[in-house]
Amino acid sequence: MIRTEETICAPATSGGGAIAIIRISGPMSISICEKIFFPSESKVNFGDQKGYTIVYGEIRSGEEIIDDVLASIFRAPRSYTGEDSVEISCHASPYIQQRILELLIINGAIPAQPGEFTQRAFLNGKMDLSQAEAVADLISSETKAAHKIAVNQMRGAFSDEISILRADLLHFASLIELELDFGEEDVEFADRSKLLGIVQEVLSVSEELTSSFSLGNAVKHGVPVVITGNPNTGKSTLLNRLLKEEKAIVSEIPGTTRDAIEDTAVIDGIRFRFTDTAGLRDTSDIVENLGIRKTHEKIGEASIILLVADVNEGREALEGVLKRIHGQPDIIDKKLFILINKIDSDPNRLRDNIQQKIVPAAGESMLFISAKTGEGVDRLKEMLARAAGKEKLQSENVIITNIRHYEALLHVTDSLNRVRAGLHNNLPEDLIAIDIRQAIHYLGEITGEITTEEILGNIFKNFCIGK
Amino acid sequence: MIRTEETICAPATSGGGAIAIIRISGPMSISICEKIFFPSESKVNFGDQKGYTIVYGEIRSGEEIIDDVLASIFRAPRSYTGEDSVEISCHASPYIQQRILELLIINGAIPAQPGEFTQRAFLNGKMDLSQAEAVADLISSETKAAHKIAVNQMRGAFSDEISILRADLLHFASLIELELDFGEEDVEFADRSKLLGIVQEVLSVSEELTSSFSLGNAVKHGVPVVITGNPNTGKSTLLNRLLKEEKAIVSEIPGTTRDAIEDTAVIDGIRFRFTDTAGLRDTSDIVENLGIRKTHEKIGEASIILLVADVNEGREALEGVLKRIHGQPDIIDKKLFILINKIDSDPNRLRDNIQQKIVPAAGESMLFISAKTGEGVDRLKEMLARAAGKEKLQSENVIITNIRHYEALLHVTDSLNRVRAGLHNNLPEDLIAIDIRQAIHYLGEITGEITTEEILGNIFKNFCIGK
Repeated sequence: MIRTEETICAPATSGGGAIAIIRISGPMSISICEKIFFPSESKVNFGDQKGYTIVYGEIRSGEEIIDDVLASIFRAPRSYTGEDSVEISCHASPYIQQRILELLIINGAIPAQPGEFTQRAFLNGKMDLSQAEAVADLISSETKAAHKIAVNQMRGAFSDEISILRADLLHFASLIELELDFGEEDVEFADRSKLLGIVQEVLSVSEELTSSFSLGNAVKHGVPVVITGNPNTGKSTLLNRLLKEEKAIVSEIPGTTRDAIEDTAVIDGIRFRFTDTAGLRDTSDIVENLGIRKTHEKIGEASIILLVADVNEGREALEGVLKRIHGQPDIIDKKLFILINKIDSDPNRLRDNIQQKIVPAAGESMLFISAKTGEGVDRLKEMLARAAGKEKLQSENVIITNIRHYEALLHVTDSLNRVRAGLHNNLPEDLIAIDIRQAIHYLGEITGEITTEEILGNIFKNFCIGK
Repeated sequence: MIRTEETICAPATSGGGAIAIIRISGPMSISICEKIFFPSESKVNFGDQKGYTIVYGEIRSGEEIIDDVLASIFRAPRSYTGEDSVEISCHASPYIQQRILELLIINGAIPAQPGEFTQRAFLNGKMDLSQAEAVADLISSETKAAHKIAVNQMRGAFSDEISILRADLLHFASLIELELDFGEEDVEFADRSKLLGIVQEVLSVSEELTSSFSLGNAVKHGVPVVITGNPNTGKSTLLNRLLKEEKAIVSEIPGTTRDAIEDTAVIDGIRFRFTDTAGLRDTSDIVENLGIRKTHEKIGEASIILLVADVNEGREALEGVLKRIHGQPDIIDKKLFILINKIDSDPNRLRDNIQQKIVPAAGESMLFISAKTGEGVDRLKEMLARAAGKEKLQSENVIITNIRHYEALLHVTDSLNRVRAGLHNNLPEDLIAIDIRQAIHYLGEITGEITTEEILGNIFKNFCIGK
């Protein structure tokens, strides 16, 4: 599966557009291209060009001219993959791309597997594994928040944190293992409280990273928000208003329109996934009612609940629906926004009554809005962004988004908890050393110091072709 | 509308993929990029680079890193547009592309209109108008034949022919106009038979080009083929067999799958558009029968008819359906293939009977096939490719595919026919000169020596963004 002796090729762009890029990497890149690419200036010899230069010419198959192209040349190790590479920029006709790929393959290249260029960049030491993974995240990033996390990770912010932790633990291990070497003499070299300090330090960073995963995951896949409330309280109007601004942004880039499987909107650079529910009806046969049960399920999956009430319904109706929301088993983990809607129809009287009588619980907010006129909606958006972790996203904190990293960090935390317990309980050094090595191992898996073909296979199979 | 003082920008790739290209062209291209692009080697100054070099670095918005990119620099006049240009190769995230475009626009670029890069290439004399039009054809080419015509046209084969014709006519005009200058003296400088020779020569080339349009148009849009015949003669089986090989070719390039509005197959590099009809039933109430009428309509639109008969039906059934086909009003312009199907079920007896009794008319062919086993189908394909004009496509003849060129050439032919008649009838030189100037005008419209904003607008509005 890992085959760096081969020269690989693949289209790096997809679909329509004006230009297509075909990427070639490997020891034979330049010599294969020389067989099919002919510079238009006859005195130019493609194979003699230095890296980071572009040559204009023709792709030919015998006498047949396939296309006028630009060929960019990169020489090892100064390329994306670290190998000799060529990028052919041709007209974006499917036929032309097909022909060029065929010619490359006829002349000795093989079709690249998904992510194989980035895998080679990793294998050639151009980036570590977590940086390689960030490349895929970067390509699929659609929001400011997802983009920021991916850029930071690609540029090594996460790797740096992991390296520091790893260095700390290696230092710890060296201290412990020194003791082991002299174990017979019953000399205690390492100051146990100092060791404890190191472990404590690493643990707290590891736990902080682990806990950032829920935010990172929400940013990557969208923050799940459920809109609920009695029928006719204006839930759909609110949803439409929240979605309104999003559409224009993405559609300016051709090809980015996609099926609206669920309604998503980007607020302050964070993607939210909105689900409009059937509503929570005021009926006693809740259990039998499938629609209501579905609503409860969706509430279960959401991290933010928008409970929409009609100001004209009055306090009692709101209290009723609030009671049912509070009865939701995992409500404690969610943020609840009580939105008193339609304030345009009652600016004062009922609103005051609600405001005076209903006190939101801890973790809850109440907001008066008009989905119709838009009043209060900017405030709601600001609150949504905050609830989603806007501050943390704006900080320079590392946020993990990758379940592989999350799981590795859980293992690290586990191992270190055992180390800590071992130190407390004065366990022998060799037992402590096992756990510390475990922790180092899992940290190494994140950045790829330790890896297997299986891990690599799992990571890169989800990449796109040509990256 | 024509605004070459501005610096334009647009994405040149679309949709997914690993890499996206953002294209910038115009006098400020390099200085705008210098404001947002920062080479990773601090000693490298982007603005100092010579053309055809690539620089690796970051796109930044203030402190925020948008992406690690490659920036390719081209200096006027050695670029596609003939202007200073930059191509930014970034990660294909919609968010990143959007941000880079925004940054370019904030710093003084404007969004490019469809085809504006190619329009500039034309305005800056990098290519003539028919070559510019070929760029769009090349990008959309999906078959060998369409690709060959587009490449030839882009590289100037058609322009060369037009230039020769134009030079001939200019020579002619100079002779005629010399006469005009000395008109009072009643001297005849130009040998009328020589003039006639020139006109005859240009006319025959012009007519040949005009007549190539039906082939060019069929190659560009697919050759329309209708499959007809009595029910249950195996029409669908045949269609499926003809379509079978096509699918795999295109689907290897991501993003090329498209809705099957009609069934098309590429045979010998030529696209055929197959329509399966309801069949021609043996019924007397043809006129009332909508399905049958539809079949006749489709036959009317086709340039090739595949009439499928079941060998087991015997001669009489075939004669019946042949009679109806021959009754089709415009059958004379079409190629008819009589396909005797299901020969696997009757290798000899009935087949011999048909072969002996049915003699295909001129322009018709009869072929014995088995759609089920594939026997005879390769031969059918070969015949289809020939009928579509395979030989002409393989020759180096110029084939026109563009209706604008076709119409201009019809005008040229009209004008020249008037010139010829005028010469025969000894019309005065000034009248002949008017028609000759008309012909020169129309030839000039093809290559863009003579053009208007309206013509340019019509041509480039159908281009994609970024080309």
